Amino acid sequence: MIEDKSSQRTPLSQLGEFALIDHLTKDFTLNQNSSVLGVGDDAAVIKCIDENLVVSTDMLVEGVHFNLAYTPLKHLGYKAVVVNLSDIAAMNATPTQITVSVAVSNRFPVEALEELYAGIQTACNYYKVDLVGGDTTSSTSGLIISVTVIGFSNSENLVYRSGAKPNDLLVVTGDIGGAYMGLQVLERENEVFKVNPNNQPDLSMYTYIVERQLKPEARTDIVELLKKLEVKPTAMIDISDGLSSEIIHLCKRSKTGVDLFENKIPLDPQVISTCEEFNLDSTTIALSGGEDYELLMTIDQKDYDKIKGNPNLTVIGYMTEPSKGMHLVTRGDTKVELIAKGWQSF
Amino acid sequence: MIEDKSSQRTPLSQLGEFALIDHLTKDFTLNQNSSVLGVGDDAAVIKCIDENLVVSTDMLVEGVHFNLAYTPLKHLGYKAVVVNLSDIAAMNATPTQITVSVAVSNRFPVEALEELYAGIQTACNYYKVDLVGGDTTSSTSGLIISVTVIGFSNSENLVYRSGAKPNDLLVVTGDIGGAYMGLQVLERENEVFKVNPNNQPDLSMYTYIVERQLKPEARTDIVELLKKLEVKPTAMIDISDGLSSEIIHLCKRSKTGVDLFENKIPLDPQVISTCEEFNLDSTTIALSGGEDYELLMTIDQKDYDKIKGNPNLTVIGYMTEPSKGMHLVTRGDTKVELIAKGWQSF
Repeated sequence: MIEDKSSQRTPLSQLGEFALIDHLTKDFTLNQNSSVLGVGDDAAVIKCIDENLVVSTDMLVEGVHFNLAYTPLKHLGYKAVVVNLSDIAAMNATPTQITVSVAVSNRFPVEALEELYAGIQTACNYYKVDLVGGDTTSSTSGLIISVTVIGFSNSENLVYRSGAKPNDLLVVTGDIGGAYMGLQVLERENEVFKVNPNNQPDLSMYTYIVERQLKPEARTDIVELLKKLEVKPTAMIDISDGLSSEIIHLCKRSKTGVDLFENKIPLDPQVISTCEEFNLDSTTIALSGGEDYELLMTIDQKDYDKIKGNPNLTVIGYMTEPSKGMHLVTRGDTKVELIAKGWQSF
Repeated sequence: MIEDKSSQRTPLSQLGEFALIDHLTKDFTLNQNSSVLGVGDDAAVIKCIDENLVVSTDMLVEGVHFNLAYTPLKHLGYKAVVVNLSDIAAMNATPTQITVSVAVSNRFPVEALEELYAGIQTACNYYKVDLVGGDTTSSTSGLIISVTVIGFSNSENLVYRSGAKPNDLLVVTGDIGGAYMGLQVLERENEVFKVNPNNQPDLSMYTYIVERQLKPEARTDIVELLKKLEVKPTAMIDISDGLSSEIIHLCKRSKTGVDLFENKIPLDPQVISTCEEFNLDSTTIALSGGEDYELLMTIDQKDYDKIKGNPNLTVIGYMTEPSKGMHLVTRGDTKVELIAKGWQSF
């Protein structure tokens, strides 16, 4: 589906490992005051600018987490950074540095890695994080990207998964289910393409959900917004797997139950219409879809007035005593047990 | 070559991704005072215990960096940690935390990952570092391990690659070439095994060099030793690729030349005898072999008396003006240009 626009195909072996990483990172600059030393020594050096360091790492594997048939490498590089930044936002902290390791088979030319790193750089510039380390190596098959992200926070601002209390409001940012439905559209077009490679897909009806899949954003803006609203969530997690799976994580770690209201789950009209087209239930998609990278948090009821009416924040339920269990309250006002059907790589 | 001692083969899918990482890390404890929060939230939280954070990351790929035909998984886990700790030691800093991401194909049972994590845990215990994060995911083929290591240091103690000056002494720890010759022995026995699977290899003549390959150590002890000797190297790097490649890195980053004396390069007798057996030149092996994870440093001449006679430290040359170039001074007292023939993954 993706045209190979680059006519040049320089083999990786022509540069070699050290020259390759130098080449790929030569246009990256260090913009954070805390970045003392970046790529090029045995380790990066970062000034400790707050009481605590937060660190998270994620690995994306070709054929498991992405399909290069419909994922442009630039988007992939962007997304690989974003999914990590999202983890730092979920701690109510601000990301400052990343390291990126890439394993790649010889079938990729240098120009393909340049595309990947262009996406990484776009994300670095947009989110104001510095690339300070990493390596490239060969793989026997496929492309693997491992990103580690670092941020700083004082102890008072940090939010864990474990702090929710009964009666806290359950709040989600943005809308849910778009990334999964975007994937369905891309998978369908890819099947069509396999049968008829001359067919050019018309994705204009699906721009929002396809972008949610290919170029998700990390809600680092929400960390700023919460600060401005003077709201500190009692617990928080990012939605990488699926809403139900993430709610269950919060409940288990916080030792609470939950009532989640089906009619409150924020869905984009494009998600609803595409679900109808695919004959899928939009609530099921929101609960199990994953990859939206929105934030899910719990907030003390006393803070309700501060968030009321904010277009970024939707109250979708409330936490209960653990003995009450974890439930979805349907549109028909019946209670069904919430189960995790999030994405599993194995 | 490696016997499969475990009779149990639990498929990874039986546990699933979240239960798997919980299962594999359940016996890991947090021992560092700086480890505030480990595995189980969106990110790990680490208290900043010094002025700077140092961070490094490395990826090991099956079929490229290791061959499971003769690499026990426990050793592999240990080595994956060690090669990262070595990078922190090369900054003259002390490692405190690691994160580990593993991508693994379904052909591995849970018991195989348990072995891998047992090796990781052994390294954590030995080097007193805490595992604070990471994930497991599936791969379409093979095993990939990505480790990120974190340490702390004040600015005064940090040593970069770039600080060497003309007339500084070039010093190496331990001895060189063993890991590469151990690999040659293992590769040979693996070829024999392929022809005759009943043949049990006798490696008793090669115990030191085989251990250098399969279970290298990070010279974090040297960081302590240098502190005790009150010596701060002017530049430092760890020997992951090959002595010549690493010396060239130091020279280029420090803008110096070098005279390296062939007759000063420390070689273990087992390296010499195995080189003779394989009809290889031991100097070539020391210069290009790699994976010894010793430290290579430059030291101001005024500090010579402090290191003189220390069995851990060998002076192998001295830095020169950059215009003099980079040379090996042979046993026959001729000068040949130093070239990098270190290991290349592409």
